[in-house]
Amino acid sequence: MQAVLDYLKQNQKRFLAEFFEYLRFPSVSAQSKHNKDLVACAQWLANHCQQIGLEAKIHGTAGHPILVAKTPRVKSKTKRPHFMVYGHYDVQPPEPLDLWKTPPFEPRIDGRNLFARGSTDNKGQNFAHLKAVEAYLKTGTPLPCDLTFVIEGEEEVGSKSLSGFLTRHRAELACDAVIISDTGMPSPKHPALTYALRGIIAFEITLRGPARDLHSGIFGGAVENPAMALARLLAKVHDADGRITIPGFYDGIEPLSKLERAQAARYPLKDADLNKLLGTPKLFGERDFTATEQRSARPTFEINGLTSGYQGEGSKTIVPSWARAKITCRLVPHQSPAKIRKTVLAYLKKICPPTVKLEINAGHGAEAYLVSPTGPQAQAALRALKKAFNAEPILMREGGSIPIVNEFKKILGADSLLLGLGLPDDNAHSPNEKFNLDCFENGQRMSAYLWQELK
Amino acid sequence: MQAVLDYLKQNQKRFLAEFFEYLRFPSVSAQSKHNKDLVACAQWLANHCQQIGLEAKIHGTAGHPILVAKTPRVKSKTKRPHFMVYGHYDVQPPEPLDLWKTPPFEPRIDGRNLFARGSTDNKGQNFAHLKAVEAYLKTGTPLPCDLTFVIEGEEEVGSKSLSGFLTRHRAELACDAVIISDTGMPSPKHPALTYALRGIIAFEITLRGPARDLHSGIFGGAVENPAMALARLLAKVHDADGRITIPGFYDGIEPLSKLERAQAARYPLKDADLNKLLGTPKLFGERDFTATEQRSARPTFEINGLTSGYQGEGSKTIVPSWARAKITCRLVPHQSPAKIRKTVLAYLKKICPPTVKLEINAGHGAEAYLVSPTGPQAQAALRALKKAFNAEPILMREGGSIPIVNEFKKILGADSLLLGLGLPDDNAHSPNEKFNLDCFENGQRMSAYLWQELK
Repeated sequence: MQAVLDYLKQNQKRFLAEFFEYLRFPSVSAQSKHNKDLVACAQWLANHCQQIGLEAKIHGTAGHPILVAKTPRVKSKTKRPHFMVYGHYDVQPPEPLDLWKTPPFEPRIDGRNLFARGSTDNKGQNFAHLKAVEAYLKTGTPLPCDLTFVIEGEEEVGSKSLSGFLTRHRAELACDAVIISDTGMPSPKHPALTYALRGIIAFEITLRGPARDLHSGIFGGAVENPAMALARLLAKVHDADGRITIPGFYDGIEPLSKLERAQAARYPLKDADLNKLLGTPKLFGERDFTATEQRSARPTFEINGLTSGYQGEGSKTIVPSWARAKITCRLVPHQSPAKIRKTVLAYLKKICPPTVKLEINAGHGAEAYLVSPTGPQAQAALRALKKAFNAEPILMREGGSIPIVNEFKKILGADSLLLGLGLPDDNAHSPNEKFNLDCFENGQRMSAYLWQELK
Repeated sequence: MQAVLDYLKQNQKRFLAEFFEYLRFPSVSAQSKHNKDLVACAQWLANHCQQIGLEAKIHGTAGHPILVAKTPRVKSKTKRPHFMVYGHYDVQPPEPLDLWKTPPFEPRIDGRNLFARGSTDNKGQNFAHLKAVEAYLKTGTPLPCDLTFVIEGEEEVGSKSLSGFLTRHRAELACDAVIISDTGMPSPKHPALTYALRGIIAFEITLRGPARDLHSGIFGGAVENPAMALARLLAKVHDADGRITIPGFYDGIEPLSKLERAQAARYPLKDADLNKLLGTPKLFGERDFTATEQRSARPTFEINGLTSGYQGEGSKTIVPSWARAKITCRLVPHQSPAKIRKTVLAYLKKICPPTVKLEINAGHGAEAYLVSPTGPQAQAALRALKKAFNAEPILMREGGSIPIVNEFKKILGADSLLLGLGLPDDNAHSPNEKFNLDCFENGQRMSAYLWQELK
């Protein structure tokens, strides 16, 4: 094992050069103009996996390709444990570009931070696992288990191709657990095991009024303004206490237990720190919950984008023909995405006035995830975290969604161990995304220890 | 006079070729990238005026240039009447471009309609007046009055340079009335004199929340969503009856008289026709007023544009850093733009929650206009309309704003005669703007008759 740790220590400089190559691909899965960049990124990753001693194969899908890489299988009289490491090479759109200090796909190191789109979400985190297995393979250290890496290219757009892929390769991918580093840890000194995730539904609503933009002088006053109708519609979704007013929205959600609230209270980033970190004039959320609870254990109705009428320089005196809102709801355990989607859309249809036409464009959805942190695999993960980071790990919920965690459970029957390496100030999904290099290095060590602890 | 009418009849084909040249300039005053196109358009217009026998001069301003063109002054023992013809060569932005059937600056004729940005608003209407004076000058028919054309390039952005210009040239521009064709007529068979206009205030509000776009999974629930805050703010401006709820907004407005409501009822475009024309699911406006009244005699609070977060393809799971609304209020006589701006902004500041920062970007403003239609000049204009169109003209209010009408009154002491040639389906400010060629020809005849009737 010492050989593995020494190898990791000695090769960090080269690892960074390779990581830079990985980050330079603008693998933006939501934008079709980048389709070729995703293919190129997957190909680079496959070549890299082969160079470090894995057997790699790219699988085409209806969307972006999936990379599968395996450790050389060891013959054994007893059944060897088999773990899957999951990650994604696709990234969020980099827009708005003018807010980046340096270009999103030209990685830059400043102190112990590496800035680039995809650095923390998720290239850096899956690359840490690859470097750990490289250390085993290149030092000839026997792995106590078989490993399969599955790194996909559609995580940021709902992992549309993955569940079909898992189903088709169910036998080959059957495993004892799935290891995922795509969540966060509260600080470099607080490694964490995440025991719950929020789910999501995404959709877009468009209100259509007049057949074209109208002169606001000639016609304004006698027609519904679709942008105003949209504002009124959206305003009816929340009350002043930050609660969502859609009937049935909270049905079936279990209240947080005392233990859970105590764990949430251990979270080191306090409300004042959070406010400062985010630069908000004042925090705001559902009454009677702490900020940590609001953003990890409570559902939301969030506007991701608004579009209507004229957005250019100066003014344009029109009544816009239409107005659009992109919306995502974060869901918590015991909320069914299909049911909530139906509930939300039925409510919006009900309150939409007859003066505009409501169009709905449904997007992706995923269930929330909840697993007990007391099982043997979780305990093994906590030990690996403690050794790698030299600190007591904490148990936490996370507010993000990893839709395929539920698919792994359903299709492969495997629980997921969520061992996130991202920090709260990493700007995931934002301009100036970064990854902390201590998290990168300790993440490699955590991965190396993990296979020993899990065996 | 018959020579003038014959000249107009015989030269329509050439007039159209010249009109096409005028329309090909993308003279979009709101977009600085078009600054050179405005200069080129003014230069073309000056050359054209000189060709038809006017003395033309271009006056530079801090913004876009102003063209002044005069008929050769006739020596006379008695003071000859002097009228100003006002128009503008700047146009609204053509966006959204994809909704144009043919490019906005490549004029196209289909039947009796000419399609191009600026065709009805306002190039076609001021060009009709130029063609009428050309007929007088080229046929050697004596004009019974002196004329001065003032055609500016900033009407669509608030005519910022014009009032200073009028003040500086007050003596030269002193006149008996200003003739303006920049309003509308209800149908080709309903010529109209407009006796009132609405005023306007324009502004932009931006709500700023977190310092950057945030991952909606990691942070959503604990921060105010600026787009949602904007929706709530805007929703508090209207009630379900279409009335604006800002305290003091309607203060001082005089109720419509019986005569005015009777005139409004004469307007030939009925509510059902209007609904069909605009393609709206259902008309909507302030309760207890007809659509004609709502859009000409009542004030509005209109969203012209909404911008927030991600607007591209697919979804992006963020809490946007900010949200913006472009707003214009149409005002009616006895509402002061300055006072209403103060009232509206004070209300928005008051209801803005402490969780976001409200930024206000003030735009242009203009007072409403109201003049009695029973004076001798108005009667002369009605006679000219009747002769040119061979139909009984109607008296109407219009909902649009011509900010400089009040400046003409204040600076030059002159009333304005509003003799609009635009039709309700002309798509002013919209894609596929057009101008009706019957209105163009009858407009030329109206202008020719007008100088006889006004003398």
